Amino acid sequence: MQHIEKYQKPFLKYLEGFTVDREPKNLYNPINYILELGGKRLRPILTLMTAEVFGESSANAMDAALSIEVFHNFSLVHDDIMDDAPLRRGKQTVHEKWNLNTGILSGDAMLIMAYQLFENYDAQTFQDLARLFSKTALEVCEGQQYDIDFETRDDVTIAEYLKMIEYKTAVLVAAAMKMGAIVAKASIEDQDAIYEFGRHLGIAFQLQDDYLDAFGNPETFGKQVGGDIIENKKTYLYLKTLELGSDDDTLNLKTFMSNSEFPNSNKVEKVKALFKSSGAAESTQNAVKDYTNKAFEVLETLNITEDKKQSLRLFGEQLMNRRV
Amino acid sequence: MQHIEKYQKPFLKYLEGFTVDREPKNLYNPINYILELGGKRLRPILTLMTAEVFGESSANAMDAALSIEVFHNFSLVHDDIMDDAPLRRGKQTVHEKWNLNTGILSGDAMLIMAYQLFENYDAQTFQDLARLFSKTALEVCEGQQYDIDFETRDDVTIAEYLKMIEYKTAVLVAAAMKMGAIVAKASIEDQDAIYEFGRHLGIAFQLQDDYLDAFGNPETFGKQVGGDIIENKKTYLYLKTLELGSDDDTLNLKTFMSNSEFPNSNKVEKVKALFKSSGAAESTQNAVKDYTNKAFEVLETLNITEDKKQSLRLFGEQLMNRRV
Repeated sequence: MQHIEKYQKPFLKYLEGFTVDREPKNLYNPINYILELGGKRLRPILTLMTAEVFGESSANAMDAALSIEVFHNFSLVHDDIMDDAPLRRGKQTVHEKWNLNTGILSGDAMLIMAYQLFENYDAQTFQDLARLFSKTALEVCEGQQYDIDFETRDDVTIAEYLKMIEYKTAVLVAAAMKMGAIVAKASIEDQDAIYEFGRHLGIAFQLQDDYLDAFGNPETFGKQVGGDIIENKKTYLYLKTLELGSDDDTLNLKTFMSNSEFPNSNKVEKVKALFKSSGAAESTQNAVKDYTNKAFEVLETLNITEDKKQSLRLFGEQLMNRRV
Repeated sequence: MQHIEKYQKPFLKYLEGFTVDREPKNLYNPINYILELGGKRLRPILTLMTAEVFGESSANAMDAALSIEVFHNFSLVHDDIMDDAPLRRGKQTVHEKWNLNTGILSGDAMLIMAYQLFENYDAQTFQDLARLFSKTALEVCEGQQYDIDFETRDDVTIAEYLKMIEYKTAVLVAAAMKMGAIVAKASIEDQDAIYEFGRHLGIAFQLQDDYLDAFGNPETFGKQVGGDIIENKKTYLYLKTLELGSDDDTLNLKTFMSNSEFPNSNKVEKVKALFKSSGAAESTQNAVKDYTNKAFEVLETLNITEDKKQSLRLFGEQLMNRRV
């Protein structure tokens, strides 16, 4: 993707200056470890790109971009503890490589450091960034809590699910873009519009992720295809099947997805067939298109030149057309 | 203590308005639980008192005071996980009453909410408060890490120990007071001086705590007298005994405090005798006096009336003369 390459290198260079040796080592080494593990750095790149879209040099948005990346990695460290995950990007998670206490304490320090990264901005920009950051960070915590709560509930509605993925995933994408607009001192209308663009795109992205988890190409998806099905996750595909499917479909789906004894390959194929026959697969693809289109509609209201709109549209399309 | 009573009631009233029902309940109920568990509320009271000392209504410092209290309780929730502590103020800790994940996630939310409590201040005050808060919060994390690191080291110096208690305990007392001065828009000189007052008082307070843990009155101390000795903690008394004691004292101390098989009551009495005979007990009391005097010296440089200095001095004396 053209934009990623343009911003990724300078961002990684800036990140290098942040992950220096600090004392006490047992607190800061794990922080450097997780920040250097890799990833596409999509969120900070969105901040840099948005700052430029609104006429600001992306260099001036580096601290805000880095704050978003540090926060994102904080949430990974603590989520990996909560999910008992041994691996992250193919490497040991922080609490596995060190221990539980290190995971908790280093995560805490990262959340604080994310706020510190706003300190070089003037007082008004600082307050605007920190206020948006706090609201977003709290919503991410709430999203994580809803996700945990949903595991033990069997009456989760589509509306609740959409709110959960909005909080857990989409608001951070939205905030990353709005931060670029804040640093660029864009109008409040443009700040709010780019937030909505990011929020809709973020929801579309997560629904796409749900879809690809079942129907993606095993050779390029990166994660195990069918992983959500194996873990009995109540994704959009699952909830839509309950809504659209026949009584038989519903019964079959619940049977497959509550029985951990069921052979996995057989289970994945049977559940995928239900996702298709019920119309849930198509409905999910339509929802991805709907949210992407909503994002593009918001784009039209922005006070920026047509070629900049085109560049944001292109980015959204590249993101949504991924088959990985 | 006169000041505590004056500020405690309005603070508790204000806290009540904060601990309201919010969704998702599994995230916010544990936060309300820990905040309502009690405690002397010393830190927020220091913020309110300091604001008044610098001519500001304490009502205008309520949000800053509450932020300090929310942060303090955040650190208790996460520290209790790290220490595997079942009880806090005689009640179940959050991770015991709920579970590990709730302790982590609710703690994270509290750290964010502490920042949000600055949002009603003007942009410059917001930035000053948030900057001080971040610096302090990160030092508290570093202090906690040093404390963990010291458990498995046997070459901890007095200087390292003092830095650890400064970071883990004293800087929050100092920041609580400086926040009152920031809200009151006191001069930078006065802000820095009241910070130093609180820092010295905070170190004195923690050294006093070390002393009372061994030599306090069992009927009024609140915690188990000798608790630090039983847990083989490397307190100021311990490190001073290594410094001042004879070779025999040192050998005996290390033998008692590394052997978990040793009967506790016998061990506590023997170690206390070493603390006394080596001169460490007296030296600790002198250090408490020294840091208290340093705090009082700083007081003289403040641009406030003599009766306000007297009132801060009285507060410090009451704090240091406690035999509890």
